[in-house]
Amino acid sequence: MNQDLFHIAGKAYHSRLLVGTGKYKDLEETRQAIEASGAEIVTVAIRRTNIGQNKNEPNLLEVISPEKYTILPNTAGCYTAEDAVRTCRLARELLDGHDLVKLEVLGDQKTLYPDVPETLKACAELIKDGFKVMAYTSDDPITAKKLEDMGCVAVMPLAAPIGSGLGVCNPYNIKLILENASVPILVDAGVGTASDAAIAMELGCDGVLMNTAIAAAKHPVLMASAMKKAIEAGREAFLAGRMPRKLYASASSPLDGTFF
Amino acid sequence: MNQDLFHIAGKAYHSRLLVGTGKYKDLEETRQAIEASGAEIVTVAIRRTNIGQNKNEPNLLEVISPEKYTILPNTAGCYTAEDAVRTCRLARELLDGHDLVKLEVLGDQKTLYPDVPETLKACAELIKDGFKVMAYTSDDPITAKKLEDMGCVAVMPLAAPIGSGLGVCNPYNIKLILENASVPILVDAGVGTASDAAIAMELGCDGVLMNTAIAAAKHPVLMASAMKKAIEAGREAFLAGRMPRKLYASASSPLDGTFF
Amino acid sequence: MNQDLFHIAGKAYHSRLLVGTGKYKDLEETRQAIEASGAEIVTVAIRRTNIGQNKNEPNLLEVISPEKYTILPNTAGCYTAEDAVRTCRLARELLDGHDLVKLEVLGDQKTLYPDVPETLKACAELIKDGFKVMAYTSDDPITAKKLEDMGCVAVMPLAAPIGSGLGVCNPYNIKLILENASVPILVDAGVGTASDAAIAMELGCDGVLMNTAIAAAKHPVLMASAMKKAIEAGREAFLAGRMPRKLYASASSPLDGTFF
Amino acid sequence: MNQDLFHIAGKAYHSRLLVGTGKYKDLEETRQAIEASGAEIVTVAIRRTNIGQNKNEPNLLEVISPEKYTILPNTAGCYTAEDAVRTCRLARELLDGHDLVKLEVLGDQKTLYPDVPETLKACAELIKDGFKVMAYTSDDPITAKKLEDMGCVAVMPLAAPIGSGLGVCNPYNIKLILENASVPILVDAGVGTASDAAIAMELGCDGVLMNTAIAAAKHPVLMASAMKKAIEAGREAFLAGRMPRKLYASASSPLDGTFF
Repeated sequence: MNQDLFHIAGKAYHSRLLVGTGKYKDLEETRQAIEASGAEIVTVAIRRTNIGQNKNEPNLLEVISPEKYTILPNTAGCYTAEDAVRTCRLARELLDGHDLVKLEVLGDQKTLYPDVPETLKACAELIKDGFKVMAYTSDDPITAKKLEDMGCVAVMPLAAPIGSGLGVCNPYNIKLILENASVPILVDAGVGTASDAAIAMELGCDGVLMNTAIAAAKHPVLMASAMKKAIEAGREAFLAGRMPRKLYASASSPLDGTFF
Repeated sequence: MNQDLFHIAGKAYHSRLLVGTGKYKDLEETRQAIEASGAEIVTVAIRRTNIGQNKNEPNLLEVISPEKYTILPNTAGCYTAEDAVRTCRLARELLDGHDLVKLEVLGDQKTLYPDVPETLKACAELIKDGFKVMAYTSDDPITAKKLEDMGCVAVMPLAAPIGSGLGVCNPYNIKLILENASVPILVDAGVGTASDAAIAMELGCDGVLMNTAIAAAKHPVLMASAMKKAIEAGREAFLAGRMPRKLYASASSPLDGTFF
Repeated sequence: MNQDLFHIAGKAYHSRLLVGTGKYKDLEETRQAIEASGAEIVTVAIRRTNIGQNKNEPNLLEVISPEKYTILPNTAGCYTAEDAVRTCRLARELLDGHDLVKLEVLGDQKTLYPDVPETLKACAELIKDGFKVMAYTSDDPITAKKLEDMGCVAVMPLAAPIGSGLGVCNPYNIKLILENASVPILVDAGVGTASDAAIAMELGCDGVLMNTAIAAAKHPVLMASAMKKAIEAGREAFLAGRMPRKLYASASSPLDGTFF
Repeated sequence: MNQDLFHIAGKAYHSRLLVGTGKYKDLEETRQAIEASGAEIVTVAIRRTNIGQNKNEPNLLEVISPEKYTILPNTAGCYTAEDAVRTCRLARELLDGHDLVKLEVLGDQKTLYPDVPETLKACAELIKDGFKVMAYTSDDPITAKKLEDMGCVAVMPLAAPIGSGLGVCNPYNIKLILENASVPILVDAGVGTASDAAIAMELGCDGVLMNTAIAAAKHPVLMASAMKKAIEAGREAFLAGRMPRKLYASASSPLDGTFF
């Protein structure tokens, strides 16, 4: 498995688990959980997290060092293309020209479901402005393909609404997205527990990004370790090629979908 | 996690993954897969595997050393209580008085589904005869409780039929079994891929036994590694306490079953 | 569909929905719900329902007339073979020699899950004594076959525990039972709403028996009507032969089980 | 149930099943299946069906009379807003000013998944031009709300890709759409068998539109009858208010989502 590297925007990573930094008790728990997760890419909500905007408060980058981690600024809390673009530009300034961003443009405050047309609009503008965009989106395969065609460096369909913990609600759509993709596809949002992450990887996703599933577990650091292993387990199971499913071992053919 | 040991018949184990030895290409693949799985308990079908019955053929115990592994003889291929009891006695002889066995009494050759009344009968006899019985059974919670009450050292409900790879078909029954159990409950049979194993552990099972899911993968050794991680991931996720499932993050209450 | 009759113990029925009589507000609601359900076979818990045991109380048979309905006495509330056999004999006396019974022997008061060995024992005794036995059981395919081989006139696996409303928890087991059956297979217990009943029929079951799903709905009479239609819909869909499932219409082959 | 009418664009209907006219063996089978379905609204693919464009070929309207049925022209086969708008105008001409249309703008020929931005664009133009638009879309709740806010008379999320027969792949999204809707929500596309239709109605949808599930069944006329009953069953079950789901009857609380 040494050679199974994951590439985003020209850089190679060993870990396929990307994590957020929100909802932890304090910065120390954040640090411990992220370390236990083995993540190499850590996403930061620019609108909510101090990475230097406020000189007098604790700065996340003191515990999550940009030397050690790839910091992935995200636009959580943006509801229009305009806001999202402005937020990315602010992040670039704060991070000395860093141009890799995770775009999310949300549709409403209740469900946090993405707004597809605004996402497409923001994406076009950001790419024109030189950003490398990882785009959070719904699990709509046509939209996923449009984002890839526009030049996103990764497309990140949801498993389920942000913070819901429902797991991969529609594996068929993820499968459709994967069938047509030639950029990395990462499931972003909706994972609730370890098996959810494994399922996403077994479908063939390149990685998974999560936050609440770790931060809102009763024991976040232990859950971070569980997620690290689940991502690796799902990836290895995908590469290993699972046995066929049958109604029973001696059945002459694998189960087909006409069954029920 | 150092203290999270798993006890069977008075002995402590670190690994909660138990593996079989059937269906591999050769003994060398068997050895490598079992090593990659991290298993400490290895089950052997006495009727099909040479552990000394036949002096002139390769002996499994030469690659799976009883010094290193707990050898768990099983009664695969037995369709009556009588056959199963006889097979266990043969195993005890071959293994110098070793009294831990996995009992399975199957109902038919087509589905390999357990025969519950014959299992109960064999179990009673074996326990009377001094065996420590780990009993393979259906996912029927009443039968599981009867087996515990008879004195089994572990109860092993199926996830799905042997060799089917369907995963945990009825998590409700596994949950019912766990609610009432005071001996270790291990899922045995039916796991197909890594997430299936993680799901079993997240439900609260004490361990999982599998064979085909590893041996019939395209790359058994890699799948064995996936399973090792999946079991650990599921166990840690169970201990970590997952976040509640909600329709969306701001929903005021967790999803309840009236939903659909 | 005129010819699609359903036979039990030599008698033909049009309706494939069998209903219970418990948990209604009063006898008038019972009557209305049963009429709306279109059921022709109505099951009665002999231990709980007055069908003449008590001369001074309302008699169910005054609203559910044996002239109009086939009364199917059942042994709800029995936890041993002995109790169940005694209850069937009492029913036969009360109903002037009526020998069709629904046997249920439960494993505990908490889950109401069937006790398989006691069910088999009671069944043997009842058949020897001349009863025509419809046997409630778990969804274990080996036990279902044993009950058929003993001479039951119908085998009735659960969809889920009595009163749970979980629907068909393990369609694979129901499918295994149906593959091997040559007597009518009816799903009994666990249905919660109309689609659950339709799913049971689409799997190929011959009928469905339910009580709580109707009686515990907010509007039992309307739910009874829903169930009547759902059973017919599921039966017709089974006979009509559904389209294959595909990932998308232009996919060259139906979905097979290796998918996820 | 006499009062349970369904209103679209100011007109009341008894049937909540809308059907298409494609993929039948011949016009006679089309006629029989539609009659058996009980549908009052029949959708016609203007680009593929002769409703008068070609004077020398059989005209669908001779068997599906506009006196008896509400004809709902649809834009199947359109991949751009422009094409869809042009097709609707052609339909209006052919149907003497009839202004109720079903808009579908597809993303690609392989999956037939809708193109959300083109759908929104076409919708705006059609509404401006006086059409009453029923809009086929993905199950994205934000897009569904946008379509409602633009003035669609109904929003029609897919259950699954057109012609896939997979049923309601993501009931959570349908639930989110229903929570926020004040126009009729109809599931359109993806239904495969009767229980799928019942499930859509039990979720609270106002109706279901289908074509392949009936036309591609082995016996289309019988499947049409099954679908009629399934829609009514699901509607009645929704109105009747189903029992809560529990792990077993005596459980003190309904199942919540933390379960697995």
